[in-house]
Amino acid sequence: MKYQIEEIENGTVTTTPGFKAAGTHCGIKKRKKDLALIYSESPCEAGGVSTTNLVKAAPNHITDAIIHSGKAVRGILVNSGNANACTGQDGFNRAKAVQEHYARALGIKTDELIIASTGVIGVELQSDTIIAGSEEIVSALDYNGGLDAAEAIMTTDLRPKFRAMKVSGDFGTFTIGGMCKGSGMINPNMATMLAYLTTDIQINRDELQDALVRAVNRTFNRISVDGDTSTNDMVVILANHSSGVVYTKVKDAFEEALYRLCYFLAHAIIADGEGVTKIITLNIINAASEKDADILGEKISCSPLVKTAFHGEDPNWGRLMGVVGRAGIPVDPAKVRILFEDYCLLDTDYKVSFDEEYLRSILAKKEITLTIDLNMGTHSVQWLTCDFSKQYIEINASYRT
Amino acid sequence: MKYQIEEIENGTVTTTPGFKAAGTHCGIKKRKKDLALIYSESPCEAGGVSTTNLVKAAPNHITDAIIHSGKAVRGILVNSGNANACTGQDGFNRAKAVQEHYARALGIKTDELIIASTGVIGVELQSDTIIAGSEEIVSALDYNGGLDAAEAIMTTDLRPKFRAMKVSGDFGTFTIGGMCKGSGMINPNMATMLAYLTTDIQINRDELQDALVRAVNRTFNRISVDGDTSTNDMVVILANHSSGVVYTKVKDAFEEALYRLCYFLAHAIIADGEGVTKIITLNIINAASEKDADILGEKISCSPLVKTAFHGEDPNWGRLMGVVGRAGIPVDPAKVRILFEDYCLLDTDYKVSFDEEYLRSILAKKEITLTIDLNMGTHSVQWLTCDFSKQYIEINASYRT
Repeated sequence: MKYQIEEIENGTVTTTPGFKAAGTHCGIKKRKKDLALIYSESPCEAGGVSTTNLVKAAPNHITDAIIHSGKAVRGILVNSGNANACTGQDGFNRAKAVQEHYARALGIKTDELIIASTGVIGVELQSDTIIAGSEEIVSALDYNGGLDAAEAIMTTDLRPKFRAMKVSGDFGTFTIGGMCKGSGMINPNMATMLAYLTTDIQINRDELQDALVRAVNRTFNRISVDGDTSTNDMVVILANHSSGVVYTKVKDAFEEALYRLCYFLAHAIIADGEGVTKIITLNIINAASEKDADILGEKISCSPLVKTAFHGEDPNWGRLMGVVGRAGIPVDPAKVRILFEDYCLLDTDYKVSFDEEYLRSILAKKEITLTIDLNMGTHSVQWLTCDFSKQYIEINASYRT
Repeated sequence: MKYQIEEIENGTVTTTPGFKAAGTHCGIKKRKKDLALIYSESPCEAGGVSTTNLVKAAPNHITDAIIHSGKAVRGILVNSGNANACTGQDGFNRAKAVQEHYARALGIKTDELIIASTGVIGVELQSDTIIAGSEEIVSALDYNGGLDAAEAIMTTDLRPKFRAMKVSGDFGTFTIGGMCKGSGMINPNMATMLAYLTTDIQINRDELQDALVRAVNRTFNRISVDGDTSTNDMVVILANHSSGVVYTKVKDAFEEALYRLCYFLAHAIIADGEGVTKIITLNIINAASEKDADILGEKISCSPLVKTAFHGEDPNWGRLMGVVGRAGIPVDPAKVRILFEDYCLLDTDYKVSFDEEYLRSILAKKEITLTIDLNMGTHSVQWLTCDFSKQYIEINASYRT
């Protein structure tokens, strides 16, 4: 099967035919947009993953139940400015009230509406304010509303994050559009990561869920800003079938496009962090298992000593070896190789080459590829991380509860 | 059994009768002391724990074998300025050459001398320099040499760390003296933590090892600056039996004194960090198991979001709840209580009390006690950690490999 993926730079969740969206200001935040709505003309299959944090926000409980039921979905409502987390039964009741009101306003069933929240923790949800804003946002729903929605889910993000992939071939054309918000680096409260995707491929619920999980595991689950995970994290994809292109016939094309879209959005989260001066693509190669590679990828991505070294543009292989040794995976230190871009700084048997000028030119760049070759097997993974800067401390220490 | 523990402020490893020590400059560092030697007049039982990092320094391999053999030990040689880690077979050979030379110079067997190194990684050990310094340091061995030795094991530590505990009762008197160095916060290369203890109690090797492991698990293993562990970490205790006080008859007294000494030294490591503005005593109470409590203690101690919040003097219970939820231990969020000193900020069922002025007065202190009550069982542990400051980034980013 031949196919071609067109990356649409200004593509959003509404680039996919059949989806409307809107983003408005209802009053949770002072001035900025704080409410996003995605609406599908027809029933959609819904796939989704939600935070594994046991302190889970009320809307995540509600949305998890919808995703788990496998029933059709028609829309997604997201408020920013209040996470509705650690709010107990009252928080749950308020989330349900919002969901019920908006479902009525849209003329759909209550459990056809997915809901989400992001913002401060432990503050009573302004459910009356959100409900009062329903008329405005429902009437604002538009086939070009994707950008407004992407703006409305932002908290301390510097810019909205969105993109779409259009896939063409003998089979016809299908689209996947998406938006997201993050990250910990710039979020004074928690590293809440939200991503919403739309597609018009014809796919059943289990296929959609499996494809989403595979893409998320390779992208959103392999980024790390500071190792903290949120009470409100959520990724949801809606498929309305309208392209008529059948998933099973274009499986590779769909999975590649979905991976590329999720990778783009994950990269945008890392790149958008205030205080981020370096984006590090971390390849863990030739591990004994994919799990080993992921464990090491996460430990390196979260090591303050490694992250500060990158901030200082220092090719500090000693700190990297320290993490390799403490990661809890089987390694033979003498077999390890460490490469900065194409330059092998540490070769097997502890052979070190140190061309200072060349290494400095690599480390001076904003995007740096680091490769750890374990020489223990055939499994490789790619992580995305960033440096730790003084601005990170400033932003996260100056925030007040 | 009645006993009394006297904490000797200027006590060191030589406060214990029968131990000599010295600290000299041999030339690894430019000017500062870089060589420490502890020597016992008589054979000692030796207990020890060493880094679990698979990338283990050459001297740690040699010392581990000695400790594991259970044989008598007469001395400890430590150099600072070079870690002799990631140096392969050549590094091992150089460590052996140093050990053999110093054993001869002291008139003891090679495997009666424990060796250790701390400093930069991946640089050939200056073994000839260390060997050339043997005459000076051996002749400097003195019953009052403990402070010199404590100074000589420092790398970027701001001050030497030492203390002794003298225990008296009907049984007579015994002493435990100690010194240590650390920590990651101030160490531009790695978080190497070294601690050396001496005692004159009469104890067999297995009892000594067990007592040390128990004390280390409750102290050095429950401190965290940045979560990175070193290739060179080591804690060793030597017991020369000279007090005539038999361990089995004063077990409680010995264990309490050993715990207090290790706790003092661990606290000194945290307190000595450049860039540290807050020392946090973290109590995890009423966990379902000690393991659960330790997992949560470590995750909170290493969370950048928590550590920056303390730096900003912000009682950010939302970030703490986020870590509680992602720690991977069984918790019921609605049962969790969070206390800053005696003030219960978060009570069960998400009841929040927020006396801003009082909380601010607590957070403004340099030493703060934080308690997380899980209400899941009866197991409690205490961790020590510190804040993340801009100076941490500065120190660790400005270091050059």
